[in-house]
Amino acid sequence: MAGSTYGNIFKITTWGESHGDAIGVVVDGCPAGLELNEGDVQKLLDRRKPGSSQFATQRKESDSVEILSGIFEGRTTGTPISMLVKNTSQRSSDYSEIASYYRPGHADYTYDQKYGFRDYRGGGRSSGRETIGRVAAGAIAEKLLLELGVTVTAYTEAIGDIRISMENFDIEEARRNQTGMPDKTANEKAEEYLKACMEKLDSAGGIVSCVVKGLPAGIGEPVFEKLDANLGKAVMSIGAVKAFEIGDGCAAAYANGSANNDSFRMNGSQTVKATNHAGGILGGISDGSDVILRAYFKPTPSIFQPQETVNRSGENITVQIKGRHDPIIVPRAVVVVEAMTAITVLDLLLQNMTSRVDKIKGFYS
Amino acid sequence: MAGSTYGNIFKITTWGESHGDAIGVVVDGCPAGLELNEGDVQKLLDRRKPGSSQFATQRKESDSVEILSGIFEGRTTGTPISMLVKNTSQRSSDYSEIASYYRPGHADYTYDQKYGFRDYRGGGRSSGRETIGRVAAGAIAEKLLLELGVTVTAYTEAIGDIRISMENFDIEEARRNQTGMPDKTANEKAEEYLKACMEKLDSAGGIVSCVVKGLPAGIGEPVFEKLDANLGKAVMSIGAVKAFEIGDGCAAAYANGSANNDSFRMNGSQTVKATNHAGGILGGISDGSDVILRAYFKPTPSIFQPQETVNRSGENITVQIKGRHDPIIVPRAVVVVEAMTAITVLDLLLQNMTSRVDKIKGFYS
Amino acid sequence: MAGSTYGNIFKITTWGESHGDAIGVVVDGCPAGLELNEGDVQKLLDRRKPGSSQFATQRKESDSVEILSGIFEGRTTGTPISMLVKNTSQRSSDYSEIASYYRPGHADYTYDQKYGFRDYRGGGRSSGRETIGRVAAGAIAEKLLLELGVTVTAYTEAIGDIRISMENFDIEEARRNQTGMPDKTANEKAEEYLKACMEKLDSAGGIVSCVVKGLPAGIGEPVFEKLDANLGKAVMSIGAVKAFEIGDGCAAAYANGSANNDSFRMNGSQTVKATNHAGGILGGISDGSDVILRAYFKPTPSIFQPQETVNRSGENITVQIKGRHDPIIVPRAVVVVEAMTAITVLDLLLQNMTSRVDKIKGFYS
Amino acid sequence: MAGSTYGNIFKITTWGESHGDAIGVVVDGCPAGLELNEGDVQKLLDRRKPGSSQFATQRKESDSVEILSGIFEGRTTGTPISMLVKNTSQRSSDYSEIASYYRPGHADYTYDQKYGFRDYRGGGRSSGRETIGRVAAGAIAEKLLLELGVTVTAYTEAIGDIRISMENFDIEEARRNQTGMPDKTANEKAEEYLKACMEKLDSAGGIVSCVVKGLPAGIGEPVFEKLDANLGKAVMSIGAVKAFEIGDGCAAAYANGSANNDSFRMNGSQTVKATNHAGGILGGISDGSDVILRAYFKPTPSIFQPQETVNRSGENITVQIKGRHDPIIVPRAVVVVEAMTAITVLDLLLQNMTSRVDKIKGFYS
Repeated sequence: MAGSTYGNIFKITTWGESHGDAIGVVVDGCPAGLELNEGDVQKLLDRRKPGSSQFATQRKESDSVEILSGIFEGRTTGTPISMLVKNTSQRSSDYSEIASYYRPGHADYTYDQKYGFRDYRGGGRSSGRETIGRVAAGAIAEKLLLELGVTVTAYTEAIGDIRISMENFDIEEARRNQTGMPDKTANEKAEEYLKACMEKLDSAGGIVSCVVKGLPAGIGEPVFEKLDANLGKAVMSIGAVKAFEIGDGCAAAYANGSANNDSFRMNGSQTVKATNHAGGILGGISDGSDVILRAYFKPTPSIFQPQETVNRSGENITVQIKGRHDPIIVPRAVVVVEAMTAITVLDLLLQNMTSRVDKIKGFYS
Repeated sequence: MAGSTYGNIFKITTWGESHGDAIGVVVDGCPAGLELNEGDVQKLLDRRKPGSSQFATQRKESDSVEILSGIFEGRTTGTPISMLVKNTSQRSSDYSEIASYYRPGHADYTYDQKYGFRDYRGGGRSSGRETIGRVAAGAIAEKLLLELGVTVTAYTEAIGDIRISMENFDIEEARRNQTGMPDKTANEKAEEYLKACMEKLDSAGGIVSCVVKGLPAGIGEPVFEKLDANLGKAVMSIGAVKAFEIGDGCAAAYANGSANNDSFRMNGSQTVKATNHAGGILGGISDGSDVILRAYFKPTPSIFQPQETVNRSGENITVQIKGRHDPIIVPRAVVVVEAMTAITVLDLLLQNMTSRVDKIKGFYS
Repeated sequence: MAGSTYGNIFKITTWGESHGDAIGVVVDGCPAGLELNEGDVQKLLDRRKPGSSQFATQRKESDSVEILSGIFEGRTTGTPISMLVKNTSQRSSDYSEIASYYRPGHADYTYDQKYGFRDYRGGGRSSGRETIGRVAAGAIAEKLLLELGVTVTAYTEAIGDIRISMENFDIEEARRNQTGMPDKTANEKAEEYLKACMEKLDSAGGIVSCVVKGLPAGIGEPVFEKLDANLGKAVMSIGAVKAFEIGDGCAAAYANGSANNDSFRMNGSQTVKATNHAGGILGGISDGSDVILRAYFKPTPSIFQPQETVNRSGENITVQIKGRHDPIIVPRAVVVVEAMTAITVLDLLLQNMTSRVDKIKGFYS
Repeated sequence: MAGSTYGNIFKITTWGESHGDAIGVVVDGCPAGLELNEGDVQKLLDRRKPGSSQFATQRKESDSVEILSGIFEGRTTGTPISMLVKNTSQRSSDYSEIASYYRPGHADYTYDQKYGFRDYRGGGRSSGRETIGRVAAGAIAEKLLLELGVTVTAYTEAIGDIRISMENFDIEEARRNQTGMPDKTANEKAEEYLKACMEKLDSAGGIVSCVVKGLPAGIGEPVFEKLDANLGKAVMSIGAVKAFEIGDGCAAAYANGSANNDSFRMNGSQTVKATNHAGGILGGISDGSDVILRAYFKPTPSIFQPQETVNRSGENITVQIKGRHDPIIVPRAVVVVEAMTAITVLDLLLQNMTSRVDKIKGFYS
């Protein structure tokens, strides 16, 4: 069944495999009149590229986006925006070997079970390259959110058990270094740790945080379309994410109500919360404070140590994976979390416009 | 915008407020020919009822379900199954006070912001009673899954920081006691802890686990409709859940690939995993092992201590909440997590039927 | 698969069978703040009732609606509105006979083929009583549209080959008489014709027209969600409709472009069309003139003449249907066409609110 | 709001404008294992091309399709199939003039009203070129249907008031000639008529019929997702269609029940209908006979006679349209009706697989 479409109003459909001709996305439902060019999209895609990082795959792709529709005279027209990125550095030879067996921690086995066969070149559709379409669409969402005064910012919060300190928080640092950590000291420790991992032919996991600022209260729909439920789906749909938190997250389970409740207070004429354990969401609807979420990524499953697995003929074998693989997913996944958050928040912002009769009357009068 | 419908093929639409006439659900897309009566549904609803627990609200409702459509001669007909439970013990007087202010940790403020006003009686639509519809629908999903050899079992894994021990695991114990813990010793400690909380006019949080057994490999759709993404949305849509995990969950972020990867091995003619850190899902698709998830619940926001908040006139005030409230949400939420998991898994099982041309040809020949 | 839900933002889910306990609908996504009571809904339901008409079934139902949720202090709250009508005059004895064979022109055979068995009492879910939910939801849609200056009006345009004359047009007449024709003379002729049909134990078909006035230009979404495409689905989903037209409809196929094109002209500062062959829709989007559609209904398939058919045992048989049946569907279907049109137009009006960045910015500032 | 996605399981998303870089479609949810190459798609696209017809636009495009994803080793993989056709013969100069005014019968005015501005080059998204994506997707649907024994065949039934005679029916003739009529004599008359229209600088309309053979009984979902309702939407979503019929269509409104009902009869061990006034659908569900539908197309709105209209400055003007336009839409639209029918029927065939518990159990055992 179709699983590559996401969103209700701002709706994206991604397509493409790791080693196919191209990877792309169609964004439908983007409102008309947004100034947009390829540079706006490229900026976010560049944050996803391995670049010269030593902690990222040595596969070098320019990942240059082409916009094929939906823009006229520099503005969105309201019709579908089709974007694609050509794959230029496929080396299927790297991957032909994996045709015959199932890599531990990968989707090889499950795709074979579901579809009867699979495009084994570089993981096919289950490859991390699939996220290119998400990031391209996220760039548009972020640009439109900015027009509405809403910003979305993601960064690396932890790698292994090295965590950033909020005292050192510097988002520019995160955009510069190889770990995506907004903390120079933590970044240095994380680099040491990652080098050690690589020496052991091993890989590492970590945590990505994302903060939404400027979101008005009232966003999110009751019951099944809660803001946190949608963010949960958005983030859990990113490969390698194994846990998702809003606000205090897991820690809330250990707290008492007296400590976990956020008091309301007047700040001038505005209602604010004295604390934000809730992470900006009450009853599934934004409360006007920062929305804060966290995604927990498992370590890259492609490691270069010998591993036990089975082949398609049903024999136990030992394999040693080759190819070009990131020793950690987190730094390149930061922008993917940001993109999925932006798309989700924007979609719910648009959905909220029909919640009140008086506002609809105002709109149409 | 509409937020009360969930699922693609097995689709449920819930309705009703805490203090309205009734609460209900319409289940559309249930396949024809399933034997079903009100007793099947009541059994699951009874697990949600406060019963005689000292840790649950003193509001006593019989929560008797009526099935109004979709069943003929004891079997589902394939048409919508409408079920309702009458509200009989509403005491709006308990709640009229909260009309004027915003309870900390509740959705009062956000509903007011979204809709301009709210049904303040008992939390209206944001009340925990909304989950009655989910549980009634979940009962049908569980019954159908059982026909396909799939079981879904949820229980309390932790209350505050008291955790069950898998050595003592006894699911019958969980169904008998007041905490939902499948561990007699842990249950006793948790009861002590909850009594202490209540004495301090405070509340507690905890963790619900859910295990799906017998699910074939291949369930879940790529990219946005992954099994884990859908489970994440399903579980995060339950009020008071602040975090969600699959398999090792958060812990995976601290592990190395060599420890986190699950080896494949042959077990006779069957491919199995030697371990299950992944929680039964690879690339968003079930791998044939147990699917394991966890939901982290915050403490009940309704506590009887004085709390600071603001009223609708924009003044800072101190309030002391009255009424009938559970000191912990977890024990009664166990069956809600189970229901949402069952609905989600069933829906994706049905969706998977169209994944292969050869199987479709077999079906229609 | 689920087929009982309609609409994207203003979303309705109907349920119930002809001879079950009740028939109902859940309206989700209705904006908050609309004044609404049971009388508003009953008014439209009463137009669907057989009343004392000699051309309608002798089954007498009060069809009294109960609203169970979604209203507080006389206004919609933005949460699901659950409405039900109890079935009180079921006489299953009338229908037990049809359990064993397939009535020509009915859905007995196709339901059996699809589901393996069927609720044969009065046609079960395929009965015309299913439209009660649509009309109840349509009453809400019409009330909200009225707030936005949009009216929806349906009437009988033809019965057999007796057609109304626009010179005699009187909508009050249509609401008073037994045919729903807004033309006293045509009504009289149609009554004669229907009496003749009944004497011959036969039935008749006819045409329902519907006009939407006050709809602003710009409503409808490109490509697959065009206003006319959605109206087509809405109307064709009503049992017994065999054809659908917009504007000149079929006649446009025989016209030349020079005659069929509508010129634009300035009317003061407003752009209007000099004619309206298009029926108010260009490129799938409303153009500001009246939207005009037509639904063609087949004659009631339940006739009292002997008919040839087969039974469930696979034998050719001759049957003579008993029971209480309308000799013509059209008069009671008028309000159903009106309801489906209103729901569709409202849903697209709400969807249109997100079409322009400048208007979204205005909304949120 | 998003309007460029169609289908539930077999889901297509089209994109592209008449004078953009390319036009395309993403097909998601196509089952895995279907043999497919570009030739399969090109074959259907070629039927849509103007070719050397004197009754079609002189714009010459090769309309060569490229498949960018979703195929591996000659078979569909179950992941999205992205297809595109480059626009090569855009001459925007033809169209720059229409930037300033609204062509009668076109979507210029309504797009401007909805979006605030429009891509005026060749009609932008509202151009007939948008149907390329539908036809490419339809080619895949037809190929998969063929595997299931279902064929979909469309042809021109009438041009102006020249109608084919079923006695002369020859589908090969329809694929050869310039009108798409499966009747040599009718084709000749229609050619004469079209030449006369062109001499008068006028245009003509007509009717396309489509027949689905081999569809099993039971396809279509009750109430809102009826087979005829979905076909109605599919066909009405094609630009220029003003009416839609199933089976006897409009004529049913003038018939009596005794003539309109189709008797069931046994044909060996099979239940068949003695006649097919219903057009293969009862209660919205296929009955095993041929599904027959008709689409009524208005004449091409682009005519070369002087026409009255208004410009964007709000002035009455007289215009004479230039450019390359078909004098009739019907011949090139035949394959579009066929494609939309195929996509709709296939989608409902797939949806039907979950209708019965016993069949689901069979599938998973």
